[in-house]
Amino acid sequence: MSAELEDIHEECGIFGVWGHPDAARLTYFGLHALQHRGQEGAGIVSNDNGNLIGHRGKGLLTQVFSDEREIQRLKGSHSIGHVRYATAGSGGSDNIQPFIFRFHDGDMALCHNGNLTNCPSLRRKLEDEGAIFHSNSDTEVLMHLIRRSSKPTFMDKLKEALNTVHGGFAYLIMTEHAMIGALDPNGFRPLSLGKMTNGAYVLASETCALDTVGAELVRDIRPGEIVVVDDSGYHIDHYTDQTQLAICSMEFIYFARPDSNIYGVNVHSARKRMGARLAQESPVDADMVIAVPNSSLSAASGYSEEAGLPNEMGLIKNQYVARTFIQPTQELREQGVRMKLSAVRGVVKGKRVVVIDDSIVRGTTSKRIVQMLKEAGAAEVHMRISSPPLKYPCFYGIDISTTKELIAAEKSVEEIRDYIGADSLAFLSLDGLVESIGLGADAPYGGLCVAYFNGDYPTALDDYEADFLKSLTPDDRVRLPEFALYKSKYEGNEYQALPQA
Amino acid sequence: MSAELEDIHEECGIFGVWGHPDAARLTYFGLHALQHRGQEGAGIVSNDNGNLIGHRGKGLLTQVFSDEREIQRLKGSHSIGHVRYATAGSGGSDNIQPFIFRFHDGDMALCHNGNLTNCPSLRRKLEDEGAIFHSNSDTEVLMHLIRRSSKPTFMDKLKEALNTVHGGFAYLIMTEHAMIGALDPNGFRPLSLGKMTNGAYVLASETCALDTVGAELVRDIRPGEIVVVDDSGYHIDHYTDQTQLAICSMEFIYFARPDSNIYGVNVHSARKRMGARLAQESPVDADMVIAVPNSSLSAASGYSEEAGLPNEMGLIKNQYVARTFIQPTQELREQGVRMKLSAVRGVVKGKRVVVIDDSIVRGTTSKRIVQMLKEAGAAEVHMRISSPPLKYPCFYGIDISTTKELIAAEKSVEEIRDYIGADSLAFLSLDGLVESIGLGADAPYGGLCVAYFNGDYPTALDDYEADFLKSLTPDDRVRLPEFALYKSKYEGNEYQALPQA
Amino acid sequence: MSAELEDIHEECGIFGVWGHPDAARLTYFGLHALQHRGQEGAGIVSNDNGNLIGHRGKGLLTQVFSDEREIQRLKGSHSIGHVRYATAGSGGSDNIQPFIFRFHDGDMALCHNGNLTNCPSLRRKLEDEGAIFHSNSDTEVLMHLIRRSSKPTFMDKLKEALNTVHGGFAYLIMTEHAMIGALDPNGFRPLSLGKMTNGAYVLASETCALDTVGAELVRDIRPGEIVVVDDSGYHIDHYTDQTQLAICSMEFIYFARPDSNIYGVNVHSARKRMGARLAQESPVDADMVIAVPNSSLSAASGYSEEAGLPNEMGLIKNQYVARTFIQPTQELREQGVRMKLSAVRGVVKGKRVVVIDDSIVRGTTSKRIVQMLKEAGAAEVHMRISSPPLKYPCFYGIDISTTKELIAAEKSVEEIRDYIGADSLAFLSLDGLVESIGLGADAPYGGLCVAYFNGDYPTALDDYEADFLKSLTPDDRVRLPEFALYKSKYEGNEYQALPQA
Amino acid sequence: MSAELEDIHEECGIFGVWGHPDAARLTYFGLHALQHRGQEGAGIVSNDNGNLIGHRGKGLLTQVFSDEREIQRLKGSHSIGHVRYATAGSGGSDNIQPFIFRFHDGDMALCHNGNLTNCPSLRRKLEDEGAIFHSNSDTEVLMHLIRRSSKPTFMDKLKEALNTVHGGFAYLIMTEHAMIGALDPNGFRPLSLGKMTNGAYVLASETCALDTVGAELVRDIRPGEIVVVDDSGYHIDHYTDQTQLAICSMEFIYFARPDSNIYGVNVHSARKRMGARLAQESPVDADMVIAVPNSSLSAASGYSEEAGLPNEMGLIKNQYVARTFIQPTQELREQGVRMKLSAVRGVVKGKRVVVIDDSIVRGTTSKRIVQMLKEAGAAEVHMRISSPPLKYPCFYGIDISTTKELIAAEKSVEEIRDYIGADSLAFLSLDGLVESIGLGADAPYGGLCVAYFNGDYPTALDDYEADFLKSLTPDDRVRLPEFALYKSKYEGNEYQALPQA
Repeated sequence: MSAELEDIHEECGIFGVWGHPDAARLTYFGLHALQHRGQEGAGIVSNDNGNLIGHRGKGLLTQVFSDEREIQRLKGSHSIGHVRYATAGSGGSDNIQPFIFRFHDGDMALCHNGNLTNCPSLRRKLEDEGAIFHSNSDTEVLMHLIRRSSKPTFMDKLKEALNTVHGGFAYLIMTEHAMIGALDPNGFRPLSLGKMTNGAYVLASETCALDTVGAELVRDIRPGEIVVVDDSGYHIDHYTDQTQLAICSMEFIYFARPDSNIYGVNVHSARKRMGARLAQESPVDADMVIAVPNSSLSAASGYSEEAGLPNEMGLIKNQYVARTFIQPTQELREQGVRMKLSAVRGVVKGKRVVVIDDSIVRGTTSKRIVQMLKEAGAAEVHMRISSPPLKYPCFYGIDISTTKELIAAEKSVEEIRDYIGADSLAFLSLDGLVESIGLGADAPYGGLCVAYFNGDYPTALDDYEADFLKSLTPDDRVRLPEFALYKSKYEGNEYQALPQA
Repeated sequence: MSAELEDIHEECGIFGVWGHPDAARLTYFGLHALQHRGQEGAGIVSNDNGNLIGHRGKGLLTQVFSDEREIQRLKGSHSIGHVRYATAGSGGSDNIQPFIFRFHDGDMALCHNGNLTNCPSLRRKLEDEGAIFHSNSDTEVLMHLIRRSSKPTFMDKLKEALNTVHGGFAYLIMTEHAMIGALDPNGFRPLSLGKMTNGAYVLASETCALDTVGAELVRDIRPGEIVVVDDSGYHIDHYTDQTQLAICSMEFIYFARPDSNIYGVNVHSARKRMGARLAQESPVDADMVIAVPNSSLSAASGYSEEAGLPNEMGLIKNQYVARTFIQPTQELREQGVRMKLSAVRGVVKGKRVVVIDDSIVRGTTSKRIVQMLKEAGAAEVHMRISSPPLKYPCFYGIDISTTKELIAAEKSVEEIRDYIGADSLAFLSLDGLVESIGLGADAPYGGLCVAYFNGDYPTALDDYEADFLKSLTPDDRVRLPEFALYKSKYEGNEYQALPQA
Repeated sequence: MSAELEDIHEECGIFGVWGHPDAARLTYFGLHALQHRGQEGAGIVSNDNGNLIGHRGKGLLTQVFSDEREIQRLKGSHSIGHVRYATAGSGGSDNIQPFIFRFHDGDMALCHNGNLTNCPSLRRKLEDEGAIFHSNSDTEVLMHLIRRSSKPTFMDKLKEALNTVHGGFAYLIMTEHAMIGALDPNGFRPLSLGKMTNGAYVLASETCALDTVGAELVRDIRPGEIVVVDDSGYHIDHYTDQTQLAICSMEFIYFARPDSNIYGVNVHSARKRMGARLAQESPVDADMVIAVPNSSLSAASGYSEEAGLPNEMGLIKNQYVARTFIQPTQELREQGVRMKLSAVRGVVKGKRVVVIDDSIVRGTTSKRIVQMLKEAGAAEVHMRISSPPLKYPCFYGIDISTTKELIAAEKSVEEIRDYIGADSLAFLSLDGLVESIGLGADAPYGGLCVAYFNGDYPTALDDYEADFLKSLTPDDRVRLPEFALYKSKYEGNEYQALPQA
Repeated sequence: MSAELEDIHEECGIFGVWGHPDAARLTYFGLHALQHRGQEGAGIVSNDNGNLIGHRGKGLLTQVFSDEREIQRLKGSHSIGHVRYATAGSGGSDNIQPFIFRFHDGDMALCHNGNLTNCPSLRRKLEDEGAIFHSNSDTEVLMHLIRRSSKPTFMDKLKEALNTVHGGFAYLIMTEHAMIGALDPNGFRPLSLGKMTNGAYVLASETCALDTVGAELVRDIRPGEIVVVDDSGYHIDHYTDQTQLAICSMEFIYFARPDSNIYGVNVHSARKRMGARLAQESPVDADMVIAVPNSSLSAASGYSEEAGLPNEMGLIKNQYVARTFIQPTQELREQGVRMKLSAVRGVVKGKRVVVIDDSIVRGTTSKRIVQMLKEAGAAEVHMRISSPPLKYPCFYGIDISTTKELIAAEKSVEEIRDYIGADSLAFLSLDGLVESIGLGADAPYGGLCVAYFNGDYPTALDDYEADFLKSLTPDDRVRLPEFALYKSKYEGNEYQALPQA
């Protein structure tokens, strides 16, 4: 919830289907299950016998597709779609995906979840060669690389392009004859293949979208893989062997829907284990456990059961909060008007409460939560965070682009506690996190990317490296080269095998 | 959740403020906290020095007020507003409240939560005298009665009118010089008075709206009371002494927001007690407890703690479900496309689960939930309902208008279990409900209306009585006259005192 | 055009059809042909086997019905509709017609074109008897009168009500079993009955709407008549014999569409004759004639042909001018930004021009036109107005409610000429107007109301009389009682026969 | 009108301003005056200190900019805008201009009026080099050529690009530091430079837009010229000397607004001369002249004056016709429902009428007009067309892309007369057209392109040549090479000087 309220956003969710007579509508429902991954823009492109038809717009999926006719216009048996958190800036609606490209030899559409570490230099190089970009997004770069490749076949061109882009990416491509998914060598973002009872194949960012459309999971797409779905079925290829799983741990902590499974691990259950572990690591003598809704509900449940404390609804979130255009004035805010989150006086009054949250970003939300609970009469407020302190930016698709906005990058735990006004504060340990998730891959951190917690980035940082190093303290700089993943990347170690899902 | 999915609806939420420079905006936020009480229409009327200005529309509050200018146009320091569940029928947007009435001696606005038992006969009588109605709603009747009264003062006219209408009602009236609230003699609907730090008074259907706008609770409005708020403060009057508290028990079971307090009882805590009592009454040997989100979360938590079973997220509700215009085709539904509720395979597979739901209406939702859980691999599904079986219609504002749609009116518990396919099924006892809520008023059922469970209506049924009696079985008919409240009503027993909140 | 630019508005246009399977759609097209009579609101009510279904909204018809589904929802074989110029004030969208009334003995819908002279006193009286009004409009009054009548049959009640309301009115009523039209005793507003090839009957404010839907004119409805259309055909009745034709001369001058015929007189041809007569009465030595588009095109053509001068396009109106939300700032206006009307430099430069306009209201538009033409290089600008000077308010449906806003009420022709900066100015004579229109009814002014020109009102002014008399100069007051129509009204003279159309 | 009703469309209108504090709003009003040049899409890009901000959308300008905030968001002192007729096809809203391009060395925006003859081959060549196109439009090609040019300066790159594209074009470019306009070597499309009183410069497709924003004409941009406007004022450059004026004669006949001047010739006056010449060439014994509104009003006026016949309003166009979503069903059409154009029975009944129209495309509209007039009682209908028969496609920006849709390409005048059912039919001669317009340039046809009438194209047809030649009859093919302009193009004749405007 802190992550949510403090605007840490996943960039996107992607969904595609090949071989269903009502493909665009199905994509709509698939995207609907992925709406939590991006609420600022959405789009669907359908493939009607090779002719690509698209509709995109700003806002929630239900706003972009506010008319049955919009879906009916998207004829065809194959379709891909995208929901997006729109980054600030001048790009605006030009950045909404999927993008359609019109070529004399056939149309293509493309959408993308992730962030490239070498995008600025690739764009500059491509521009210097005459390429023209219409959006600010990283996504277009791949299409330019494909079109400029001198390789003989489309698959060869695509592989060359995928080896040229670095960082975190899950691409979904629609061509006249196939739907193609591709994942980066570290598998930062989840991507799963499913099959419907009518034989149609679907690709989705999370398994909850497979469940929503009634598809069975076939397999998770793994690092470095390309999956090609066409009328003959699906086919797995790969563009590199240099892979090492490092899936974003924030997917487990906050982004993914609790009913999704990632490499076989259920997200709700993982969060519950984080909460239980947190109760073991940082117990507190209190009257009740309170979740910060909605993302910390599972962790709070785990903490409560492990600690033997009742789990109460001491904070409530307005479920109709989305999309309000009317905002409180500053004066109303000072008078106590709050729309999103309320403390429940009847529950917390006079009680010693343990508040479970998934993360602390800037600390402003935590400070507000503590204040609300105290105003509502809580006797003591103990804050417990089901992940380690966030200290470093992410370069693979989460919009924490600078350490400056992270309170834990600047302050100690005790200083944060003092700032937010809690009676006590504790974070889950990094080991606790890794073991609670329990992915168990034969890779550092069990196959998780935990770089925002410890700075151990699984890849070279390319265009972002210079600025990042400048932002570090001397202590950090000494520590960094020792990190296992970082080292392996630079020293050319062989990557380890993936866990069997 | 069953109630929610199966379309049992509260009719309305009301909110008003007197004496705040940004009254309409404040009303917007107050209504926002009451949005769960009605999602089909909303309106706000402001009082700009006696001139009433209104804006109303279909849909969620955020849709009706989609533009800052709509709020700015509603100038003035006083304002009332309404959110509504639109009943079916031809009335359409003409039924959206508050209604504004233009008289040569000043404007008035009116909105209403509840249902009158003698509305059809009053309308007919008024029409026969030449009255013209613009809407299908019960609300207009009161204004006609006021205007036709021969009493000397407005307050006298109002009191006469309030004594003429029967049933359940919480009215909110805006005149040039005052904001007035009035509650029926049984207090079927909650209505609370609060005070802001700047001295403004607010009236709201639930205390959660007071909290949202930063107002302190002054007191709950009680049966038979009229509260008049004007520039001199607030003043409590009453139009009858023949009162007896019988607040709708469904407010505690399903309608009200968990953070609201009603006569001092916190709704979440009451639900938790219902869950705990249910665990005592109907224990089961199982691996986990699962809530049907969102309305059964509290009860599931209570059951889990009492039973010592883990509370798991085995069902998930899509939080972006509202307002979709795109619907699955029948074919997609058969292929398993579901938008609202999903079972979490990773959680329930192979487990014996206790599912906690707040109620069973038609049984179709329960049947679907059991089926989903079994398809997701649950070994056993035990359904536990945190209220007694719904058997009789409500005539005071909930849209259960006929016993025919209630599965428990026709089938025994065992027959329902068989129909929904659960391994076991149990309901909370009526005593359990009353004691869990613990309102403790010196009135039958501790001050609750439980008529949908046992047919013991706290008032005469007036225009609805003949049809209701016809719908009863001979057994029912024998039993009915013995009921305490029903009897007291017809035999003119004195009503009891209210509990001190 | 001056009338148009200076906001003289007709109140409404009405259209109805009985007996067509696609009645609401047909009504849409009929109203579309009447859009010039009101652009601020529109509505359609259909009669689906006695069940009335409505849709109303602000703006142009194309905005109110922006979706095919809105029309499809309006099922039924009978339908009435309304386009409206929304008067200022607090009523807002509550004033948009047709109004639907729900009674226990059946629904009714009602719409109205005109203005009642005794509406304020009727409303007050009805309110004192307990009637409640929802709108500011005159329309509701009729329904209250009908419902309160003690007469035995609906037709008797209606006739009594029609005899109670005074002033200008064309009503259209939809009941379960019939569509009814009714016209005031002076026939201030036009209303025509037509028949479609499939046998359906239509009623419309102007014959252009009959043409648009392919209906043949059956007959114009005459003063004091009621036309009842039902499944057996149409039937003409009357509620009074005290009738005397006094149709609004502004219908011929400015309001009506040029292709409409009123009592057999084509509007375009009448305007052309006004222009020709104006050329005879007030010739000028000039190089060309210029119309102020669009309403003066016909008159300019007549002037040009009679004067033997070329008819040039020296002023042009932007045909996309409607519904712009973006307005020039004051600064842009001063820099010369103009959206609606432009002078054509290439045409008028160095020329002596005769500008034909239909009327002068406040004079500000005429002043601006003269200025634009002079800035565009016109050597001389001679203004010729195809109607007499507007000096008195209208109480029958045109929104000139006070003499103060009329420049000719205060200034002589020479003073007006000086104010607008023209080289010469002349108005058509009253005789010239009456003879040009040539209605030829056996009634004062050939059957026209010319009260805005000479104060000779065809009816008592009722509630407006006191204020009107106060606004008059002593000269006016002396002159008034001599007027034929005014006199006839007060002295109870028998009304004359209508001309045979 | 026939052109209008039968969907001959100009592709676009462009407008730009440099150096005005309210630049985007001014551009809105400029585009509003050009709305007749394209009604399917509109956009504005503003330059806020080098940062380009855009807003584009489908529909009329008033629909795209339906909110004051949209204009306010477009900050900056410089702005360009575009209105567009959207060609059919899959491009949809991606084709709406101006396009914004984001480069590491600064943003650029581009819009365009016209059509390139070598666009397909340029696109193919660019694609083969790796270029990616986002739209179907010709416009993007120029930007790709600029970015791929190896010339040293931006102006050199631009000139190279302008020499590479062939056909008809008026480009408007916004860079960080300048607004640039460029016209093709034949000046097919008009483009004018104006100056406001505050010193700001504007560029517009037609002078009517200069008038609307209060700007004085500085000069028309001439074939082969580039105009650069920046903070130092304006500067005229040129990219080629091989120019020869061949401005689209349809601008004079139908497209341009009558108040616009093109190379000093007023469009209304030119049309009036066409009508007068037509009266001389093809007189007829009749009772009246009737224009097909709106585009033939001027020509009808000229015919009427020359012939000494009255000019009557025998056909009327609904001025609210735009943007209706509700359409008549086929059944209603057969019953005579017509929305756009009506015959005025009261005017034409029993009369011998001369109908003046600007062109005949497919003939279906003319046929319908004749039929409507005859049904309305016209005794004789004589059709006179104020331009020669349309026989050949246009490749420079009018969407007549094939001869097949042109009735005059297949039928003789007598055959057309028979098809449309008129009593007589005549077209203006080509000489009559050229002399009536009277542009008087020292170039073939006085500086007009008349290729749609005689096949004499002023440029090579490039990518369209093969298909065009195939579509010709043997007769045509023999005749074509003799044409002066065509020949001069191919034989490298020196182009002639422009007329002095």
